[in-house]
Amino acid sequence: MGNVTYDHVRAAAARLKGIANRTSVLTSRTLNERTGREIYLKCEQFQRGGAFKFRGAYNTISQLTGEERRRGVLAYSSGNHAQGVALAARLSGVRAVICMPTDAPTVKFAATRETYGAEVLTFDRLTTDRETFGRQVAEERGLTIVPPFDHPYIIAGAGTAALELLEEVPDLDAVIAPIGGGGLLSGTSIAAHGWNPRIRVWGVEPVLAADTYRSLQAGKRVFIDPPSTMADGLRATMPGALTFPILQSHVEDVVLVTEGEIADAVRFALIRLKTVIEPSAAVALAAVLKGDLPRDCRRVGVILSGGNIDPSLLRSLW
Amino acid sequence: MGNVTYDHVRAAAARLKGIANRTSVLTSRTLNERTGREIYLKCEQFQRGGAFKFRGAYNTISQLTGEERRRGVLAYSSGNHAQGVALAARLSGVRAVICMPTDAPTVKFAATRETYGAEVLTFDRLTTDRETFGRQVAEERGLTIVPPFDHPYIIAGAGTAALELLEEVPDLDAVIAPIGGGGLLSGTSIAAHGWNPRIRVWGVEPVLAADTYRSLQAGKRVFIDPPSTMADGLRATMPGALTFPILQSHVEDVVLVTEGEIADAVRFALIRLKTVIEPSAAVALAAVLKGDLPRDCRRVGVILSGGNIDPSLLRSLW
Repeated sequence: MGNVTYDHVRAAAARLKGIANRTSVLTSRTLNERTGREIYLKCEQFQRGGAFKFRGAYNTISQLTGEERRRGVLAYSSGNHAQGVALAARLSGVRAVICMPTDAPTVKFAATRETYGAEVLTFDRLTTDRETFGRQVAEERGLTIVPPFDHPYIIAGAGTAALELLEEVPDLDAVIAPIGGGGLLSGTSIAAHGWNPRIRVWGVEPVLAADTYRSLQAGKRVFIDPPSTMADGLRATMPGALTFPILQSHVEDVVLVTEGEIADAVRFALIRLKTVIEPSAAVALAAVLKGDLPRDCRRVGVILSGGNIDPSLLRSLW
Repeated sequence: MGNVTYDHVRAAAARLKGIANRTSVLTSRTLNERTGREIYLKCEQFQRGGAFKFRGAYNTISQLTGEERRRGVLAYSSGNHAQGVALAARLSGVRAVICMPTDAPTVKFAATRETYGAEVLTFDRLTTDRETFGRQVAEERGLTIVPPFDHPYIIAGAGTAALELLEEVPDLDAVIAPIGGGGLLSGTSIAAHGWNPRIRVWGVEPVLAADTYRSLQAGKRVFIDPPSTMADGLRATMPGALTFPILQSHVEDVVLVTEGEIADAVRFALIRLKTVIEPSAAVALAAVLKGDLPRDCRRVGVILSGGNIDPSLLRSLW
């Protein structure tokens, strides 16, 4: 599998049918009045595992060879990707090893082990690079690494959320999605432009994690220091080797949002939209609330990427 | 309009089309695994005004005569019904007067006045009976009272939520809904039995507000002391004259839930389902989590009646 195409997204959608949740599209007149647009929120907080990550993980695992399936998979993450991989592996009857830092929240250990039945390996975040650690374990045990974003099947799987949104709301003028490593936005833009090449595609990043924004400006992948944004799913330090050229050719621009705007969007979702989104999802809502999109983008699809917010963070955002 | 029939519910649905939100039906594998059933959550927290109340209010106002419309409407409530009436009146170009106690939360005054453009009249809750006060103002000004539940158009409008749910999930074994004055459950049961007479219908009340439970046991309407349940929408002291016989003929039983079970259900909705529901809606989720329904009720529809929880209550429930 070389370039990721619209057909890959459609094939992923066929594999996920009946397995991933076909998540709701929410609308809100309050939001429409406030933004002066028609906003369609694709709610991946209602996805299995609480985030879009399940889509790419399942799509990837479904393409393993028999031998790879027998050996198992590995992911290094303490976030939504780990849960997505653990859940997708369990459903596929494949063993999963998840590498998490020793200081990850205990609820995350419990969920990964008990709810999703994965084996958890811990490492000291201060002395050990997670990727190096993960690769070493994978090599020792013959496990296949399921990478968080920079992989064709991950990208194609992530694109199925936008595809479902377009099946429900076919005549969108624009779609907008958060950017971490760029997997979600890559898949989203391939899906959107496969559906209709005139759909305008925007990405969103926290001001504090503007690696893709800066990379697009520079015309090459720029590395940034580990970001401190509360949007913990968007702390990638560089766009992916695979995702970056996709974003370059599809994405019109990247909207930057502040931490305050992210917190406001989480609150707006909770109080006005009656739904729980995590900061990494809230960036996209923050961007439409901010109103930076061109006036002629009337009908805008927003990918709300997940709802796994730490309860104590949610309490403090109040 | 005498007895409320299935045709009245369908007529209400036709009037509400394009005006009320056709709210999402959420499902959750976690919830299904935990209950051993297939649960379909009809999410009226996503309704205009944040609760099902808009349906009945709009349906009622749409049936006023020209003269009644010119004079305006009145509701006495500090809760969802007031907001439903104020919003429905605004959309219908009808003046609304809302009678609220002087000590109602200031956010509620503001929302009722500013968001919904209603006139707010206040009364001292300790010295004045709200119904007497409301009737007096209505008489003086020639306003039509839009009652909270005991009215055919209110009941028919409330039933449209269940009708939409059944259009989406036609083969439910059972539906379950909260009981305040009984308007929602009356409409729900008429809709359900109009759809398929074999659908089993349950109601839910807090243990602390078991007026309908006790009335059904006694075979006549029983008055209880003003209840102290946190489910503020379910604090009616007696079933309605109109709603009670409907409940008697349609409802199989009433499940009672404790305050602790209600709080747990609010938390479950927030953390696992990623949605905000108010305690009055959470009673129905609490009932299915509790597992008191018969084993052969496999596919169960749950009416989540609204999401207007007081933020400080939500914070304290955490």
